[in-house]
Amino acid sequence: MHRGRYYTLTASCPDRTGIIARVTGFFAEHQGWILESSFHADDESARYFMRIEIKADSLPFMLATLRERFRPIAEELEMDWKITDSAVKKRVVVLVSKQEHCLYDLLARWQSKELDIEIPCVIANHDTFRGFVEWHGIPFHHVPVTPENKVKAYAEVRRLIDEVRADSIVLARYMQILSGELCDAYPCRILNIHHSFLPSFVGAKPYHQAWQRGVKLIGATCHYVTAELDQGPIIEQDVIRIDHSDSPEDMVRYGKDIEKTVLARGLRYHLEDRVLVHGHKTIVFR
Amino acid sequence: MHRGRYYTLTASCPDRTGIIARVTGFFAEHQGWILESSFHADDESARYFMRIEIKADSLPFMLATLRERFRPIAEELEMDWKITDSAVKKRVVVLVSKQEHCLYDLLARWQSKELDIEIPCVIANHDTFRGFVEWHGIPFHHVPVTPENKVKAYAEVRRLIDEVRADSIVLARYMQILSGELCDAYPCRILNIHHSFLPSFVGAKPYHQAWQRGVKLIGATCHYVTAELDQGPIIEQDVIRIDHSDSPEDMVRYGKDIEKTVLARGLRYHLEDRVLVHGHKTIVFR
Amino acid sequence: MHRGRYYTLTASCPDRTGIIARVTGFFAEHQGWILESSFHADDESARYFMRIEIKADSLPFMLATLRERFRPIAEELEMDWKITDSAVKKRVVVLVSKQEHCLYDLLARWQSKELDIEIPCVIANHDTFRGFVEWHGIPFHHVPVTPENKVKAYAEVRRLIDEVRADSIVLARYMQILSGELCDAYPCRILNIHHSFLPSFVGAKPYHQAWQRGVKLIGATCHYVTAELDQGPIIEQDVIRIDHSDSPEDMVRYGKDIEKTVLARGLRYHLEDRVLVHGHKTIVFR
Amino acid sequence: MHRGRYYTLTASCPDRTGIIARVTGFFAEHQGWILESSFHADDESARYFMRIEIKADSLPFMLATLRERFRPIAEELEMDWKITDSAVKKRVVVLVSKQEHCLYDLLARWQSKELDIEIPCVIANHDTFRGFVEWHGIPFHHVPVTPENKVKAYAEVRRLIDEVRADSIVLARYMQILSGELCDAYPCRILNIHHSFLPSFVGAKPYHQAWQRGVKLIGATCHYVTAELDQGPIIEQDVIRIDHSDSPEDMVRYGKDIEKTVLARGLRYHLEDRVLVHGHKTIVFR
Repeated sequence: MHRGRYYTLTASCPDRTGIIARVTGFFAEHQGWILESSFHADDESARYFMRIEIKADSLPFMLATLRERFRPIAEELEMDWKITDSAVKKRVVVLVSKQEHCLYDLLARWQSKELDIEIPCVIANHDTFRGFVEWHGIPFHHVPVTPENKVKAYAEVRRLIDEVRADSIVLARYMQILSGELCDAYPCRILNIHHSFLPSFVGAKPYHQAWQRGVKLIGATCHYVTAELDQGPIIEQDVIRIDHSDSPEDMVRYGKDIEKTVLARGLRYHLEDRVLVHGHKTIVFR
Repeated sequence: MHRGRYYTLTASCPDRTGIIARVTGFFAEHQGWILESSFHADDESARYFMRIEIKADSLPFMLATLRERFRPIAEELEMDWKITDSAVKKRVVVLVSKQEHCLYDLLARWQSKELDIEIPCVIANHDTFRGFVEWHGIPFHHVPVTPENKVKAYAEVRRLIDEVRADSIVLARYMQILSGELCDAYPCRILNIHHSFLPSFVGAKPYHQAWQRGVKLIGATCHYVTAELDQGPIIEQDVIRIDHSDSPEDMVRYGKDIEKTVLARGLRYHLEDRVLVHGHKTIVFR
Repeated sequence: MHRGRYYTLTASCPDRTGIIARVTGFFAEHQGWILESSFHADDESARYFMRIEIKADSLPFMLATLRERFRPIAEELEMDWKITDSAVKKRVVVLVSKQEHCLYDLLARWQSKELDIEIPCVIANHDTFRGFVEWHGIPFHHVPVTPENKVKAYAEVRRLIDEVRADSIVLARYMQILSGELCDAYPCRILNIHHSFLPSFVGAKPYHQAWQRGVKLIGATCHYVTAELDQGPIIEQDVIRIDHSDSPEDMVRYGKDIEKTVLARGLRYHLEDRVLVHGHKTIVFR
Repeated sequence: MHRGRYYTLTASCPDRTGIIARVTGFFAEHQGWILESSFHADDESARYFMRIEIKADSLPFMLATLRERFRPIAEELEMDWKITDSAVKKRVVVLVSKQEHCLYDLLARWQSKELDIEIPCVIANHDTFRGFVEWHGIPFHHVPVTPENKVKAYAEVRRLIDEVRADSIVLARYMQILSGELCDAYPCRILNIHHSFLPSFVGAKPYHQAWQRGVKLIGATCHYVTAELDQGPIIEQDVIRIDHSDSPEDMVRYGKDIEKTVLARGLRYHLEDRVLVHGHKTIVFR
């Protein structure tokens, strides 16, 4: 919980001695006030990951200069890096179908500013939530998807996303499988909520699969979307207890409660630049 | 998960041999099809509790006749009992203040018919959610409460509740303490969500209390409202893990996620007649 | 929590009206005091399941007579049924390898009588825990298993199990795959603890599999052993949260805590006749 | 999960810019390889906390020299600090009474080296576990405590603790209240497991208190012991779900499973120097 503007540096680089000292030394030199810092060494790949929040007004220069001054250090350490600014609201496009729970949940968080983002538009393959979304003052686009029109429909989805310069796309129980092309266009920027504890029950009707197998807990998984169905890097997961008396329909109902919570947590980590992707896994600096 | 209409018998009586046989024998005699049945003996008080769902069209008579025929058995067993009808929607009045999460959550469940209830009106001590509630086609009443007008304000709340013949009243983060008179008027019909794991942190600002004490989990409690603050029978509780890096404001945010889930679960148990009150405790036949 | 001796009837039969009335009517007729009762209808298979505990001394006859008198009802209802006696301690053979956590945990529960069973022997494919087991006064049999001697070794395991007339066999992290013949010899009597949240990560090194996939929770599953590896009916499961900083070795360590707890819970349900197997799923009357 | 020897620096100091840079700069200067690092700023007190693990053989000098060289930095930053050595096993004295679960659990972890500590002795106010403890090759001291002999008994306990130069003392369900003098003698070195979710149900028979109140979850709390009963800084907590069918005796049984797990987790954090005490709260760098 921060008050005031801050910058967030996220970076990864080959592991070696002196990384933290080099990076934090740079900030110390300029009287930068570090609000929060997290570090992780991945032993297997010998790669180092970090996330640092710096109070914006503690630095004697603006963001552009910060980036410019930091660049030589990043190059020296062979970093993948970025610095974001808390004053620039993230722009998140939401895709939905006919299920309400994730959409209501996201809009509740948005309207109360718990999620301090812009939602430039909602795109849906059904017209169900037009009134609800528009009542909130958010543009709503109905883009039906059929086996025949997929190419054209996804081109339209892409056009809408690009038109509003979305940072991130959230599939809030969007019941269509995105084209590989669309997935590849926004790497690590599309978040999905899958209604199972992956890798169990990939694909369609996971609650029915869970019921058939007789598991005693059901789950939900928030992950980045890649071209390979339900195989993207996992950001967050959770489970809920069920028992023999629960039908697949009961599981669907219970599942909604964890789906929306897991999606909201995963989205928050993503928007706060807490998620660093490493191959097909994630580092999440909570 | 039932399809079709059913009746729900809930009852408690002094424990003795033959209770289940007597009650289920009555239904068997009339070819009543039992969908679900739960029984509990409380050893300390020697009292017996039960809940039975019967398929409505398996019985050869209507609800009024069922009640009439069952009455002698209930009297013989000295039962407190009632039989409800799944075809009669419960009428639930919702009271809110300025926090959105429980209200959005309840309306999402209501509009999708996950909660198959009527919400005859929402009453609020702030005007914040008028537009949102009215967009859903639900009447909204703004009844401000001040130290000076309390008696009059609660009389108005009571009038509104009675006018719509509410079965139940839900305090969905309603930030006023109801008068003892109002509490007493609707015994075991007013549900509150308290934002702590009761009995810890009774009263105001429980997350700040939790932060001061340094607990590692925070919780929420759904309970029936009685005249004694935060002391009513507990229906449902849950917790979420926090750590030293979480400020009271973070806890407030995390807490919302369990508050709305715990309230929704508790309300569902209540509406499905799964909660039997026994002194200041509950039996919940999930 | 019961004091005094009781009988436990578990039964399943085709669903129809009047089952509970018929069964509880029989007990009522003989003044049988029902301590606990649970019922479940499986809609898909139209099969009915029940578990009833009756106070032994409330009945005017002994167990043999009870069984004899109940038989006609069971036949009329086409029941699979059994009645067990709390006064007859279950005999549980434990199989272990070199990991300590489940063994220590089971013996702690056994020595404090939390698990009120007999452990006629422990069988191990390593000699590691001989001293520890024998110190507790329990016979220890070291039966090494190699690719070459499997047939003979499992014949010996079977002989030892039969010799002590074991009711149940617990694989307390026994690191050998039982032969199909051995599995088939004790249907629904061998319990295993698998160190993953099945159906995820079947087979060897599940924690390494979990680490590779980058899941955010790891689990454990207690299930009945069938000839098909890790596919038997699931009795109990649980999970624990991990994050990116946890190595496979950390997961092994965390995992132990849920493995032993899940095994102990599953075993308790099994020993108290709370688990009814229905195809490859279980009904667990907790 | 580290292989090889490492040093652990834990420190707290007034917050200012440049702390991380100063400390990690020192290590970088000497080619110190940082294995793990955690930082936390407490906004309310403006105090900064850190924990850093450094690979021992990456430094060109021994521990004594490391401490000497680090001292000026620590003084400059006004630090409370210490550096521990993974090669020096912690010495942990365990106090027990008549309950087995925490003792078995700790000895299982100790014998498998999951807890890589020395247990120089077990002290008990009952003789129950003499054989079990001695079988493990650990000295066992029976020090009965009565209302009359308390002063003398606790003097003896203290003598035994000091004799073996214990680093830490674990009350593994030791059912006596330590004297204030004994508590004060080992600040932040005595860990207790309390069988409730503190601050609920302080004092005796917490499960009975929980049962009386009708809570839906019960918990356990690992905390440092201070002279004020059950009020010391909380290290770790967890809960487990119960329902109306559970008697206080059932809760005692369920509770054991979380008590031993919570104690083991809290103890591990403590032994790995992951717990920094700040007033009556803790920072736990997991």
